[in-house]
Formats: sequence, structure tokens, C-alpha cells
Amino acid sequence: MSKPLILVTNDDGITAPGLRTLVRCMKELGEVVVVAPDSPQSGMGHAITLDNTLYSKRVVIDPEAGAPKEYSCSGTPADCVKLALQELLDRRPDICVSGINHGSNASINVIYSGTMSAAIEAGIEGIPAIGFSLCDYSWEADFTPAEDAVKKIVAQALENGIPKGVVLNVNIPKTDKAGLKGIKVCRQARANWKEKFDKRTNPSGKDYYWLTGEFQLLDKGEDTDEWALSQGYISLVPTQFDLTAHFAIQDINTWNLHEH
Amino acid sequence: MSKPLILVTNDDGITAPGLRTLVRCMKELGEVVVVAPDSPQSGMGHAITLDNTLYSKRVVIDPEAGAPKEYSCSGTPADCVKLALQELLDRRPDICVSGINHGSNASINVIYSGTMSAAIEAGIEGIPAIGFSLCDYSWEADFTPAEDAVKKIVAQALENGIPKGVVLNVNIPKTDKAGLKGIKVCRQARANWKEKFDKRTNPSGKDYYWLTGEFQLLDKGEDTDEWALSQGYISLVPTQFDLTAHFAIQDINTWNLHEH
Repeated sequence: MSKPLILVTNDDGITAPGLRTLVRCMKELGEVVVVAPDSPQSGMGHAITLDNTLYSKRVVIDPEAGAPKEYSCSGTPADCVKLALQELLDRRPDICVSGINHGSNASINVIYSGTMSAAIEAGIEGIPAIGFSLCDYSWEADFTPAEDAVKKIVAQALENGIPKGVVLNVNIPKTDKAGLKGIKVCRQARANWKEKFDKRTNPSGKDYYWLTGEFQLLDKGEDTDEWALSQGYISLVPTQFDLTAHFAIQDINTWNLHEH
Repeated sequence: MSKPLILVTNDDGITAPGLRTLVRCMKELGEVVVVAPDSPQSGMGHAITLDNTLYSKRVVIDPEAGAPKEYSCSGTPADCVKLALQELLDRRPDICVSGINHGSNASINVIYSGTMSAAIEAGIEGIPAIGFSLCDYSWEADFTPAEDAVKKIVAQALENGIPKGVVLNVNIPKTDKAGLKGIKVCRQARANWKEKFDKRTNPSGKDYYWLTGEFQLLDKGEDTDEWALSQGYISLVPTQFDLTAHFAIQDINTWNLHEH
């Protein structure tokens, strides 16, 4: 049996330490091909490039023997996955992994996440997909404590398959190996960002803003990703791209929409 | 009682004809403030501006009496809503409407939609929100046949409230007034885009790609947005930003994740 083909991507860019960790882990599980943005794309959500040209080139990040095939791409994470599937890969990948993101994509952050948008793009194409994020925004973050868990989750996904229409959102707490308690399957916590705009004036006298904010956890449940992370667990949330709020259909069907 | 405050935004930019139609309709229902991108932002998904400055300025698009307060913003649709809520509006809006988009945001297009990301951003902040789209990509599209339905839906949302955690995704078929059959509450159809990259070579000999694609409807259900649109109905899908695939939690809890 041939080794599984693993497509690796991210949103922090092809040279990010989190991606290099993921590549190292995935090489133990299969044949790796990397297609990742040539520059950081954080906060891109599920953006795609419609009005601009896309460039892609073969790059060598790690010149040692057995290094994977790697391509950088001028587009967004979702563009990388589309380009990989249609143009760059010889065969359909067995799984797509995205990350490891420098920073949390738990709770409502999943909505803004380029890391998860790449995984969701693969999921839409019917390919099993997982986004990984470490709750540490630093470029020098230590990804090594999570390596065993990352390999375990991908190996289990390859063995069991991921349910159709579902993409996994895995977040890893910032802790050393001894602090990691295990993996918990969770639901997405309800939360939002309390924005604060930092208003400044540029040298020519024009006002501008920087977007800053504070994360507000509104959900006291002990079955959420935020709760698991706070207790030292890796959170695994099965995530879907059918956004229908089925529970609301009955309610809205009581509205007065049909008279003329 | 004071008139409801209606925040209007979009992703095609503040001068787009679809937004001008929405503004005209909303002026009949309340006090309108417009905060919209200064340039087209289609396909931006739920992008936010983290690494760049945001500019915003008061603009006058329509100099006639009773014209709404309008601001253009250099950011994405989600940025516009954040900036409106935190900096530009005097009070919390009663509803946020986004659109009318030039092009469909039905089915899987909701994932890539800047129009819907603006509405979802408002929804995350607890503000009732609706995204409107016309299934006609042309800049000269005729938005008038849909005006009555747009007003009816917003009036009903103001009267009944939208369930918590839900944002409405409304799509309007391309047809004349006589062809419009009514409004149907639907679920999101399963579909994807069959991408085709158009590979070209630039004048300096470097390869580049244009992203093109063909919409593939995979769902034969007669309760979907795509079905409703094909029959001449306006589709209304209640959409949620809790992406948890609750049905998959049991399945993934059978995986071997807990041994050491």
C-alpha cells in the first residue's frame, strides 16, 4: 500500500516555525507536499483571490534528503488549497492539514481564521481536513510539546475517516509537555471580541485606526473548547460548513412574509 | 418612539448600485447610517485588518435633503461593522443590513461572502442582521423588482426579532417583478465550485494563474436555497456562526485519542 499523501498548508506563511513543525510530524505519517502562502495571511478568513493574478513557485526550504515538495503561493490559504488540488498535486491527497497556527483559533476565532479556511476549503472538496493552532502568538512559540498529539490526531483521522461535511479545529494550550492533560472533543464556546480602535493621526494630519480588542468568553459551559484549553487539554471541535441554523427555520416560518 | 437605527454596509463598495437600492429601501423604515468599503471587497470572506491601518471618512454620495450619514472605510466589510459599532455610531443600531450584493451568496457561496461576513460580524455583536444578494453579477443589474420583499423582510425582522446566534442570508433570483413568486425559508444547499485555473505567462516569462470555476449543485432537495431560487422564489436561510458539528461529537469520541 502506498503511503498516504498529506497536503500541508497554513496562513502564517511557508517559512513559519509552526508549519515546519507540522511538516516534520507529517513526514512520519506519509508523503508530504507543502503549498503555503509566500507571506503571512492571518485574519484573512475565507478570502479568495478573484480580481488578481496568482503566482506559485517550487521552493526548497529544507535542502536535506527526503525533504518534501514545497510550493509557495501569492494567494490566500483558501487559494493555496484550490491551486494544490487543481494544478500542483499529481493525485488527490488523503488528508489536508493546516497550521500549526501561531495563535488560538478556538471559539469565535474560527470565523476569522485563515488556518481553518484552508482546512474548510479542503473539506468542501471532500478531502478530510484538520486545522491546528497553538495558543501562543509568538513567532518563537514552542511547538514541540504538542507533536505527539498532532501525530495521534492525524493518524486517527486517516484510520477512522472524518464524517462527511466536517472539518476538525484543533487548538493546543500554551504549556510544556508535563502540562498537557490529553485531548478533548468539544463544542465551540460562545464568545466575541470587545473591539477597541486605537485612533491616531498620521504625519500629514489624517486620522487612522488600529484594530485592537479583548477576547470576551461569554460561555460558562465545561464542554467547550475554551474550557478544555483552560484546563490544559487540547481541544478538538468538529466544525461544519453547512451554516444553516435548522432550529430557526420553524421560528422564521411564523413571520408574515407571504401576504401581498 | 424613535425610528429604528439601521446600519447599512456591503462588500461591493459604497458607490455600488445594490447598496444605493438598499439605502433607498431602508430610508422608508428608519434612520439610516452607511459605513461601507471605499473599494470592492468581493471574495474577502470574513477577513479583518490586523496588520494595517484603517482609514474612514465622512462622504456625501447623495446631496439631497434627508440623505443618510455615510462613511467610507479602507477596510473589509467586517472592519466596517466593527468600526461603525465602536467608533462611528452614536447608539447601537437596531438592525444591520448588508448588500444588496451583485451576485449570488446562496449555498456554499456564503463561506466566501464579504456581504454575509459583515452581517455575521454584526450578529456576533448581538445585533439582528441580514445579508441581501441578487443573483446577477452585473454592475447594471436591476434591483427594483426585489425592493418590496427587501422592505418586508427587514420590517418583519424588526417586528419579530431574529433568533439569537442567527443571521439571515437572503438571495433574490434574477427576474422581473412578475417572475418573483414570493419568499421561502430554506436550508443551505450542498454544492461546491469546480475550480479551473487559467494558466498564463506574463510579459517577463513568469507563469501566473487566474482563478475561474463552475458552480456544482450536488443537492437535489426541494427545501434548499438553490431550489427556491430556481423556481423564482427569494430564498431566506437562517445562518449561524456556531460552526460546531454537534452530530459528529459522538463519532469522534469513538477514536483512540486518550491512550498514552
